[in-house]
Amino acid sequence: MAEYKYDVVMSCGGCSGAVSRALGKLEGVEKYDVSLETQKVTVESNSLTEDEILDVIRKTGKTASISSA
Amino acid sequence: MAEYKYDVVMSCGGCSGAVSRALGKLEGVEKYDVSLETQKVTVESNSLTEDEILDVIRKTGKTASISSA
Repeated sequence: MAEYKYDVVMSCGGCSGAVSRALGKLEGVEKYDVSLETQKVTVESNSLTEDEILDVIRKTGKTASISSA
Repeated sequence: MAEYKYDVVMSCGGCSGAVSRALGKLEGVEKYDVSLETQKVTVESNSLTEDEILDVIRKTGKTASISSA
């Protein structure tokens, strides 16, 4: 199982809820956490790559990047 | 040119900005308007169907439906 972390710009609960719903619908995601407070998204998957998940997060229209922290 | 209208639940400028960015990146969209105030999204296209555009809006994670008004 791989864990990936992303920085995602989210302004309100509607923003973080939208990212959560997008990840919840994504096949191959085992577990995810979306934090409005820290502006971080953590995703666990054993079938999707880091970039594939980043693409889906960006499809929400949010500014997102792979987190180095 | 066809004009389609959608009801989209958006809570803040981050939400409406995300929907705008998703539509702005979508090939085939000629013009679009995203209103946080009225919770409406209007899209003009001559190549995409009403349902194809709805799918892209829903990929943002927002609750969206075709508007009857």
